Amino acid sequence: MHVLIVHCHPEPHSFNAALKDVAVETLQRLGHTVEVSDLYAEGFEPAEGPQHYAQRSDPRTFSALTEQRYNSEIATLPADVQREIARLERADLVVFQFPLWWHAQPAMLKGWMDRVFVYGGLYTGKRRYDCGHFRGRRAICSVTTGGPAATFGHNGRGGDIELLLWPMNYSLYYMGYDVLPPFLAHGIQGGGPIYQAQDTFKAQLETYKADWAQRLENLEEDTPIPFTGWSDWDERGVLKPGVEGYDYFIRARR
Amino acid sequence: MHVLIVHCHPEPHSFNAALKDVAVETLQRLGHTVEVSDLYAEGFEPAEGPQHYAQRSDPRTFSALTEQRYNSEIATLPADVQREIARLERADLVVFQFPLWWHAQPAMLKGWMDRVFVYGGLYTGKRRYDCGHFRGRRAICSVTTGGPAATFGHNGRGGDIELLLWPMNYSLYYMGYDVLPPFLAHGIQGGGPIYQAQDTFKAQLETYKADWAQRLENLEEDTPIPFTGWSDWDERGVLKPGVEGYDYFIRARR
Repeated sequence: MHVLIVHCHPEPHSFNAALKDVAVETLQRLGHTVEVSDLYAEGFEPAEGPQHYAQRSDPRTFSALTEQRYNSEIATLPADVQREIARLERADLVVFQFPLWWHAQPAMLKGWMDRVFVYGGLYTGKRRYDCGHFRGRRAICSVTTGGPAATFGHNGRGGDIELLLWPMNYSLYYMGYDVLPPFLAHGIQGGGPIYQAQDTFKAQLETYKADWAQRLENLEEDTPIPFTGWSDWDERGVLKPGVEGYDYFIRARR
Repeated sequence: MHVLIVHCHPEPHSFNAALKDVAVETLQRLGHTVEVSDLYAEGFEPAEGPQHYAQRSDPRTFSALTEQRYNSEIATLPADVQREIARLERADLVVFQFPLWWHAQPAMLKGWMDRVFVYGGLYTGKRRYDCGHFRGRRAICSVTTGGPAATFGHNGRGGDIELLLWPMNYSLYYMGYDVLPPFLAHGIQGGGPIYQAQDTFKAQLETYKADWAQRLENLEEDTPIPFTGWSDWDERGVLKPGVEGYDYFIRARR
């Protein structure tokens, strides 16, 4: 198996970076090949916009979808986007490593999605969801949060983590991926332990690293998050009667 | 009333820009003062990271929270962040105008949140949610989507729009805002009408503009999205027995 790790954290000595290293070491030890997109280290530009397109289908008015499709067709996508797409095309599994900032992925990773998941090249109106470009491949998010685990439960103050990650996971499903349930490391704050004593915190970090390695060793046993698909929708794009809704996986856990 | 419009679209002639103009004109006509943060036009840098902090609490290891707090305290926050905070401090109402990209706000706007909502200065562990810095003020998202309205219903293929906007709206509530239900303009694609004939599409755009103006004229009648607050949570940050959960507003609509 070939694995791409999309790593998004500005600090090379962060716990996110440590989890990324655990993934690289574990996957290589299992005999897989691993490639890393280190978005901050590589200086990825997150803002989609006209500055990335020397060739324009419409030179007057910029539309991201129009220029993504046009530049896909004539093979003039931005060099960094071409590089990321080539990495995705090689990967049987994509691991996203990032901290939860403002109830979502950091802007850097959001911009990677805005720019790399190009219309025309990687999806069209018909080529998405369970007919998506990357169908048959898997993706998983490994996420750190800044609060105690209980606050990210379905009744927690921090917000139900399943609900917070839904837009990101649904985007991955949109691209065709089988999306595995996320790996979560709670209570991580770069400035030091907030909710625990120093010793407990250090032990907790080691436990998380071991848990992540174990999770990666047993990934074959994971069941992807269930999503509805084309056979569940009518011609208006609405669920047929009797079919479970999008939030099935959330409700199923309660 | 003084209003800040945080506008996020790369194209000055986009429909998002037209909706932003409608908001400016309508609010001024009503006698309010209006200020616009035009994130693309002003070249806002969305990626939070060490490059923004000349002064460092910890010069060795970068933590966003640590440096946000430290630079808040010694009044050395980045100039663009100081400008945006000053704009927020002046505003009784904040309007966010953006297209839905990958089931969320564009990276540019996500980065505005990552960088401008600074720890220490604008929130702390105790100063958030219904004790947040901007309590008593209002915020509203005006969002364009690229698909038909039906596909963004609770049973729609595009994903329940209430669920997709939850992380953004919950972040605004985290800062203390009363968050009004979003204004939605569906089926907008910059490249031209996809789902409708040209004539129908143009008429639809005019209808959306009129609807947005009318919504802004009657904003006083809007009921904010209900969120749980400090009195609903126990000391672990979990809802007390019998209290409705975070997804109350979603479930209430079904």
